[in-house]
Amino acid sequence: MSIQTLARQFVDLCNQGKNFDVMRTMYSPDIVSVEASGHETAGQQPVIQKSERWAAANTIHSGKVRGPFFNGPNQFAVIFNFEVTPKDTGKRIALEEVGVYTVKGDKITREQFYYEGTW
Amino acid sequence: MSIQTLARQFVDLCNQGKNFDVMRTMYSPDIVSVEASGHETAGQQPVIQKSERWAAANTIHSGKVRGPFFNGPNQFAVIFNFEVTPKDTGKRIALEEVGVYTVKGDKITREQFYYEGTW
Repeated sequence: MSIQTLARQFVDLCNQGKNFDVMRTMYSPDIVSVEASGHETAGQQPVIQKSERWAAANTIHSGKVRGPFFNGPNQFAVIFNFEVTPKDTGKRIALEEVGVYTVKGDKITREQFYYEGTW
Repeated sequence: MSIQTLARQFVDLCNQGKNFDVMRTMYSPDIVSVEASGHETAGQQPVIQKSERWAAANTIHSGKVRGPFFNGPNQFAVIFNFEVTPKDTGKRIALEEVGVYTVKGDKITREQFYYEGTW
């Protein structure tokens, strides 16, 4: 599968709300996920669990993904826009972030999330 | 200077139309610039000349930058939205792209532009 095909499937599935299907089917067993802080989570199951914790901590009103955008033979980027209410504050907020994905052998091996400074 | 300060100056200057001031003052002499195709341009002057060629080939109606967004201690991303008319087609188009910047020692040492597949 070309990176273009994989990246377009990624965007289509996320825009159908199937983010966890993406993680289960497109993520490498040894994926590394890097948050804005630089904190890294390694391994498909730990990365899925991190997203499950985020989804449980927020009421997600909407989520949209734009892209894919490409750089070189094995990276693509997307732009996420979420409307969420963190359960600990109860205040609805808009989040915009950039995700950069590295692909090897039809699997995503690295994801880096860029968002406004939390550190 | 912190990467946050540098990145916010970057965004402010670009939104004032001072993109070339950014390149002259914030780019490392040995910066590497990577286009969507993967093509790399090395060196501050060649990178500036590449942007000069792009600016000469397009009528730029507007350019806005959102961000900065951060990942780890030495990278930030921005989202560019341009309205341009390429002089070779005469047709006005909207361009959206993601720029990812790597910073070392108060200078930008690498820029990667992510945009829709041109390859």
